This record gives sequence, structure tokens and C-alpha cells, in this order.
Amino acid sequence: MSIEQAPQKTAPRDSTGFLDDFTTLSEFGHTPGGGVDRQAASEADHATRAWWAEWLTGNGFKVVTDSIGNMFGLLEFVRGAPYVLLGSHLDSQPLAGRFDGAYGVLSAGHAAREVARRVAAGEVEPKLNIAVVNWFNEEGSRFAPSMMGSAVATGKLALETALAVRDHAGVSVAEALQPVDTRPEQVRVATYGEIHIEQGRILENKGITIGLVDRTWAASKYKIRVHGAQAHTGATVMADRRDALFGAALLITAARELTEVLPDGMLHSSVSEMEVLPNSPVTIARLVEMNLDLRSPDEDVLAEANRLLDERFAEIEQRARVQIERELTHHWGLLAYQPEGVELSRDTASALGLSHTEIMTVAGHDSTNMKDVVPSVMLFVPSIEGISHNEAENTEASDSVAGVTMLTDVAARMVGGELWDGQSEYLLGPAKG
Amino acid sequence: MSIEQAPQKTAPRDSTGFLDDFTTLSEFGHTPGGGVDRQAASEADHATRAWWAEWLTGNGFKVVTDSIGNMFGLLEFVRGAPYVLLGSHLDSQPLAGRFDGAYGVLSAGHAAREVARRVAAGEVEPKLNIAVVNWFNEEGSRFAPSMMGSAVATGKLALETALAVRDHAGVSVAEALQPVDTRPEQVRVATYGEIHIEQGRILENKGITIGLVDRTWAASKYKIRVHGAQAHTGATVMADRRDALFGAALLITAARELTEVLPDGMLHSSVSEMEVLPNSPVTIARLVEMNLDLRSPDEDVLAEANRLLDERFAEIEQRARVQIERELTHHWGLLAYQPEGVELSRDTASALGLSHTEIMTVAGHDSTNMKDVVPSVMLFVPSIEGISHNEAENTEASDSVAGVTMLTDVAARMVGGELWDGQSEYLLGPAKG
Repeated sequence: MSIEQAPQKTAPRDSTGFLDDFTTLSEFGHTPGGGVDRQAASEADHATRAWWAEWLTGNGFKVVTDSIGNMFGLLEFVRGAPYVLLGSHLDSQPLAGRFDGAYGVLSAGHAAREVARRVAAGEVEPKLNIAVVNWFNEEGSRFAPSMMGSAVATGKLALETALAVRDHAGVSVAEALQPVDTRPEQVRVATYGEIHIEQGRILENKGITIGLVDRTWAASKYKIRVHGAQAHTGATVMADRRDALFGAALLITAARELTEVLPDGMLHSSVSEMEVLPNSPVTIARLVEMNLDLRSPDEDVLAEANRLLDERFAEIEQRARVQIERELTHHWGLLAYQPEGVELSRDTASALGLSHTEIMTVAGHDSTNMKDVVPSVMLFVPSIEGISHNEAENTEASDSVAGVTMLTDVAARMVGGELWDGQSEYLLGPAKG
Repeated sequence: MSIEQAPQKTAPRDSTGFLDDFTTLSEFGHTPGGGVDRQAASEADHATRAWWAEWLTGNGFKVVTDSIGNMFGLLEFVRGAPYVLLGSHLDSQPLAGRFDGAYGVLSAGHAAREVARRVAAGEVEPKLNIAVVNWFNEEGSRFAPSMMGSAVATGKLALETALAVRDHAGVSVAEALQPVDTRPEQVRVATYGEIHIEQGRILENKGITIGLVDRTWAASKYKIRVHGAQAHTGATVMADRRDALFGAALLITAARELTEVLPDGMLHSSVSEMEVLPNSPVTIARLVEMNLDLRSPDEDVLAEANRLLDERFAEIEQRARVQIERELTHHWGLLAYQPEGVELSRDTASALGLSHTEIMTVAGHDSTNMKDVVPSVMLFVPSIEGISHNEAENTEASDSVAGVTMLTDVAARMVGGELWDGQSEYLLGPAKG
């Protein structure tokens, strides 16, 4: 990662009224702690979507919603040409921050509207049209997996599979989407752009405004099952116990200790979801199911972490007298964004006088799916103290506005044909050939 | 604990048809794994209760149910005299064994019926009447706390409080009890007897048939809350995390390690119930709530365990950057059963030629409540390998039958006036003065 320019904060004038709109948007599903709670297809998410559809329509976009609930706002400049697509997601984690996803969708709307103004004013010669997207269920907290809408639209997840997923209350995605007027719309996309908060503190620590995302971290995600045996919490002597929750506790600690053994900052390890059976105050757990999420910017470190974990699992099985089952549910290596997209962004930031640096993303984003089907640009703005998935998530107003300006200029250049080969396009949607 | 008699298994003839009835009873809520699943006021519990009411009525008992769903079967020998009450509970843990509780209720029915035969035959001169009880919700897995029915009946828990308790699905005790014809019945009790499986392996290891319960272990039960902060499981650097689930894992391990530090067998420590918030695969836990159950046959050891735990909590708070809240929900010291009851049991076992020993109970039982209001006898039969709260829970048929014989003779002597001062009685029920 190289720093392209000396740290220097700029605070462009909020000419498009972005900050006011962001304040309005943040009212939907707002929480007493200053965040939002808008899980996918919840009442708050539906209300946010309705407001966003109004915003798009009021600004001249044609609004369509596809079969998995992705919302598109379309602006046509060149009859029959495919679209430059900009967007992110309006859904959130429970008790989440205002920025994760929503910042990118609203930025996309403001950028697209400004590009349309420039086209109308003759400042941009369009080769492509422009569209804005609110991807359905990026968060995956209510309905797994995350990035559901973009996964279906890019053919990575079957529509029927996605619609059949149920939340903890037994409600399916199809049922939760009933208030939405879904149609088998298929948008033709030439290139894609997304802006997001960093959710880390690299930009903040370096005093840089714009992150040019060039790669994702490698990741291994597991479903873990720890098998023990039910027994009485009081009467059963310790030596007879096969306590699945004790085994799970040792495993959580072992996964954490890996991050201390491996080179500093090179491994992120998390267990954050757990189900205990029978979950009774007087019966020792027979089964614990949990997730395990390992991520690294170095595939060798990730492989070493996986190897070390296997050793620890064997020790834990013996100590807690349990069996551990580990199922790999997701794995990806270091995945690159198109270098041409990074180059376009770097050039744009330099022209705007915005400080910038290449950066990797640890979190997944809808652009992770989109970059596999069309040339894509992914941008970051700083997160204060790196706080995310938390009501205290925040970004300086000047950085927010700088990000919109940045995305606008990148989008204008893409509408002018940059990053596009002049003929390729991808037909979004599950039914593509 | 002294062994009163050399180990010697006896297998009395099953003259009352106990084993056949036990097979029938075990069909209610039976599980594929050979156990039962009859949580309090579930459909399976209601079906079991209906069968038990029929059994009682068919054997000449008058059946009444009090306001919290305790079922009594009454047999009157002496007009106006209070009752010798025998019983236990028919409800079970989820995926539990056939014996825990149900063995004691059916034994009580068979013992009372045989005592009635002896009274009618002039073999017993009655000073008291006899009754059988199925206490409501001894297990406490669906509706906390455990021993609910006997706690209400002995005035330790307010009826209104108990009726308002809700299960995880939001159903209240009052709602779940609707199929039951509850009435404000109040039974007058002079003395109490209960037989139960040991749920440990002391009797089995020593080859002894009857345990004479003289005390309960001391116990401290806590509600633990570990407070962290939500963050992104991928993007948040390890040093910034305040992971409530990591803190909880350290705490579970620390509680287990106490049992290895303190003298062997002198501390049982369990965490078995846990709720994680928000319980998402992509957000670090902000809050973990769990139980912690510490038990010891030595109050000094329990005090030392509590002291050591405080030290460990401070270390854990620092290491995981969390706050731990510990609320003591239940505490009791070593509680004695009336020595006269133990003496009566010892004498009865000797007369029957059954091997026996004094034993402490680690688990709570309804007799724990009853012994505080009337002279009570608590008896154990062996558990194979000490397995309990598990479908594999089992007791040898010869031990089962020996226990019924033992309870019958103890009950016959209590009906004849032993353990009773000739005038004291306790009026069961929440409305007593």
C-alpha cells in the first residue's frame, strides 16, 4: 500500500444537499443510541425503500425492482446503451450505524443526478446510461447469506434458494418481500462503482480521505458443531461431563489466541453467533453450533491459522470430551479489483486534490460480486476510530461530502466510456443465459 | 457418610405391577433415543397428567389440582386427620430420561395403594391419611424457576409471580395451565416422603441400593452478564475489539478450572444457558447473558470458589476489554433433612435387608421445599453410570422395585404416626395464613 499524496483534508462545499438528505435517511429505523436498525425487509427497511423510491422518482429516475428486491433507479442518456451502475445497500445490522451501506446508496443517487446535470449541460459526452442500485439484504443478519441481492443478480446464488431462506421467526425472504412490487427486471450493466465507509482505521490513522480498494482479504468461514452429552448441571461429577459449551468456550479462546501467535494484525478471528442446546439452566449442553470467521491479507497466514486450529481442535476434543465438526461454508483468497478501475480512481482523486491510498477491504461488499462480472471501482471514506456495526459508527461530514464528489467524477468519466471496452455488458438477474 | 451395611443387591418380587405401569408411563412424550420429553404443561405433560389422574381414580384416590397445577390423589383412613404426602414430578427436561421425577410419582402411587391395602387388612393402624402428589414444573427448563409447584405450595413463591412466568415463545404459566382444572385446593400435610434416582454414581460405585438423603450440597447460582461492544467481525482490528462472547468463553473456562484447583470432587461448576446479542455472523457480540452454577458439599470450598472467581473476573475484564456483571440469584448452605426421618429410613432399610448409606443430594428436589414445612424423608435409588438429564438415564429394575418396597414401608410407618408429633400440620397452598 503506497500513499499517493501527503495527508490533506479537503472539505468541498455540499453543493448537492447530500448532508440534509443523509439526515433524513438516517431517521428511518433510528435507534435511541443514535444508530439505525433496518434489517432486510423489516418494517424499517420497507419504509426506507419507500422513501428512496420517492427520492429517485422525484429526481427523474425510473424505478424498477427485480425478483430478489434489488431496487434500481434508471436514467437514460443514450437510447439502448447499457448502464454505469452505482450503489450499495440500505439495510443494516441490528443496532447498527447510519453509514454502512446507506452512505453508498445516497452518494450514488447524488452522483448520478449530478452526472445527469453535466450531461444535460453538455459537460459530459455520454456513451453509457447511469443507474443507481439499492442491493437487497447485503447484511445477512436476518437472512443468510450476506450480499444476497447482488449474489442473485450476478448468478452466484439461485433465486429460489434465496427466496426460501427463513429468519429465526420462520419468515421466508419471499414472505418478507411481499410488500415489494418485485418483477423479473434485468438491468444491462457495463461498469460498476460503489463507495462505502472503511469500517477500519487505516485512512483515519494516515489522515487520508479516499481509499482506492484494490483487493479483498482472504477469508475462511466455518460452521462449527461441538457435540457433547446432556447431563445434570448439579449432580454430574466433573470427570463424567462431556460439556459442549465448555468445548465451545475453549475453541473461542483458541481462535482468539491464533491472532496473538501469528504476526500482528495479519489475522482477524471471530466467533459471534451461537446456539446452545438444550440451553437450560440445569442441563449441560449436548450441542453448540457456532460460526468461525478467519480473515487475513496474506493467504499463507490464513493457511497457517487453519493448520494451527486443527491441532488445537484435537486438544480441545480431549480436554472437554467432545467432538468438534468443522464445515467450511465460504472461502476466498485475495481477490483483486480491476487495476484499471483503481487507476481511474487514483487519477480522479489526484485531479480533485483529494488525498488517497490503495487499501484492501476486509469486509465483503456488493462490489465483491459485481467486480466478477463487470469492471468495477470500489472507494472508501474514513470511519472515525474504525467503529462499525455499532450505533456509534461515524464519518466526518467533510469526508462524506468529499466521497460524493469523488464518486461523481468517477461516474462522469465512466458514463463518458472509461473502463468500458465499448461493447461488453452483463445482464443482471437470475434468468440470464 | 458411613456405609451401614455391606453392599448386597436384593431383587424383591414386583408384587404391585410397578414395572408394567412404569413402562406405560414412559410412553408419554417418549423420544426416539429412548427417553422422554415432557416439559411442564406441554402437550406431552398434559397427556401424562391425564393418564395419572385416571390411574389414581381407578385405584380409589380422590384427585384434586391446586392453583399452580400440583395434582393430589387423596386416600382417607381417619376422618379429619392430615395427610402423609408422597410424591415427586412427572415433568421432564427436554430430551430427558424416563426416571427423573416420574419414578418418584409412580412409586408414591404404588406405595400409597399398598399402605391402603394394609390399613384395610388391619396390618397398619392409621393415625394419618395418605396422599400422592405430582408437583408442577419441578424441572424449570420451560418456566423458571425450578421446583415451582412445591415452592408456591410451601409459600416460598407467590402464586401470581409463578403464573406470570413466560417461556421463550411468550406463553405464560397461566396460559399453559388452561387445559388443567385448577382450583384453590389446600391439602393439610403432616409428613412428607419422596424417592428419586440419585443422578450421580455414589450408590452404584459402592454397590448400595438405598440412599438415605441427609443433606443438600451448598450452592451459589448466578446470572452473569458480559458487556462488550458491537463491531464488524471482519474489519475491526483485534486490539479494538470488546468481544462479549470472548469474555464469556474465558469465564466459562475459568469456572471449569476452579474445579481442578480445588480439592477433587469438592466443587461442581456449570454454565449451560447462554444468550448472545445480536447473535449475528458478521457482528461481534455486545452482550452475553448466561447462568453460572457452583455447588459444593463444603461451604468453605464454595466460599473459596467465589473468592477465586472474583479474581479471575478482573483478569478477564482486562483481557477481553469487557465488563462482567454477576447477580446472585440463589444461594443456600448445607441444608439438613430431619435426622428423625433419616433414622426412620435407616431402620426401615435394615428391616427390609436393603443395603443403604447416608448420602447428600447435589440436585434440588421438591423435598428441599417440603422439609422446611414438615418432617420429610428423601430416598435415592442408584443411577446407572450416574447419567441423568439424558435419554440414556437408567436404573436397574431390581433397584426400582426395591425403592418402591422401601418407600411403602416408610409410608406405612408414617401413616402409623412415626415422624409426626400428633398435632402439627402444614396447610399447603399460596393462600395460607
